[in-house]
Amino acid sequence: MSAHTQSLQDLIDAFSMLPGIGRKSATRLAFYLIRQPAETASKLATAITSARERIRFCEICQNLCECSPCERCAHPVKDEQLLCVVESPQDLVAIEATHEFHGRFHVLHGAISPLDGISPSDLKIRELIARLGDNTFTEVILATNPSIEGEATAAYLKRLIEPLGIKVTRIASGLPMGAQLEYADKATLGRSLLDRREI
Amino acid sequence: MSAHTQSLQDLIDAFSMLPGIGRKSATRLAFYLIRQPAETASKLATAITSARERIRFCEICQNLCECSPCERCAHPVKDEQLLCVVESPQDLVAIEATHEFHGRFHVLHGAISPLDGISPSDLKIRELIARLGDNTFTEVILATNPSIEGEATAAYLKRLIEPLGIKVTRIASGLPMGAQLEYADKATLGRSLLDRREI
Repeated sequence: MSAHTQSLQDLIDAFSMLPGIGRKSATRLAFYLIRQPAETASKLATAITSARERIRFCEICQNLCECSPCERCAHPVKDEQLLCVVESPQDLVAIEATHEFHGRFHVLHGAISPLDGISPSDLKIRELIARLGDNTFTEVILATNPSIEGEATAAYLKRLIEPLGIKVTRIASGLPMGAQLEYADKATLGRSLLDRREI
Repeated sequence: MSAHTQSLQDLIDAFSMLPGIGRKSATRLAFYLIRQPAETASKLATAITSARERIRFCEICQNLCECSPCERCAHPVKDEQLLCVVESPQDLVAIEATHEFHGRFHVLHGAISPLDGISPSDLKIRELIARLGDNTFTEVILATNPSIEGEATAAYLKRLIEPLGIKVTRIASGLPMGAQLEYADKATLGRSLLDRREI
């Protein structure tokens, strides 16, 4: 006899598949859910199904959207000649929240990582190069993460984009605002010295 | 324009309702799910719906089950005259896993907690007393948590059950196996002294 009844065990198993959710958390979630009104459970189930069915890639920026081209691509922006390349939709949202960028976006959906088996062809790079073909953009800002994979992806993209005669820039790395030099890690402090600028 | 597309936002909102899942975790789960094959998402959605639809209380032990009486109640046990009262189905599973108990179970689905608005009538206490009426049980083991609520519930149940002429016992409290006296909290160490036994 298994510890839990079958459909409860199935639910625990299904929750356990999610990232960051272990068996204990999954059990807690499952018990919580079956004690809620039926609408709560059906709301979650419907949200899962409909999100999975409706969401697709925008044909222009490759961000996730429900209609293609997405709302962002369908509206005019201030800096039509600026393109910001990010790894993920979450990164796009983070950059938008700064209110410092008013150009177009392109989402790669990952970064080159041979160890994880992610090669350039797994990313939306072909779509990026195609997009740069019509000479709309004068500058491409590579806003991939300042990680090994993000830096590698940025270096790879720079080699591809420069021959097109488009200016390629990289977001700045250095000490976070409000940080203290004393506690900064060596790599970040070193980078902030290398990338020092005149004031 | 909202940060995420509508059905993605709905999914994030639905995940956020779950206990212990904040906005950041909910976003991570949502993005994970829409990148998985469609079967993964539909498997989770189906598990949620079917668990919520199928699971009910066993008419005998009040544990969660799909058919009533549940599998446990339908099978004979070694100690038919022993009844162990627990707060939750998880507690039942924990006790069963010790292989030290071979009697029947009764699940209260909570503990008395006036601060949380949980009174005896919110628990499966009426069902417990009804079950004790047919003189099957000679001993009731109160295995509620050694917390304020669990102790209060045990005291309340003791007052109800003793007049029925049934022996009422409480699981032992004391130092956990492998613990060190030096680091034990005062309440636990004090209890282990009060509840000392001859060896």
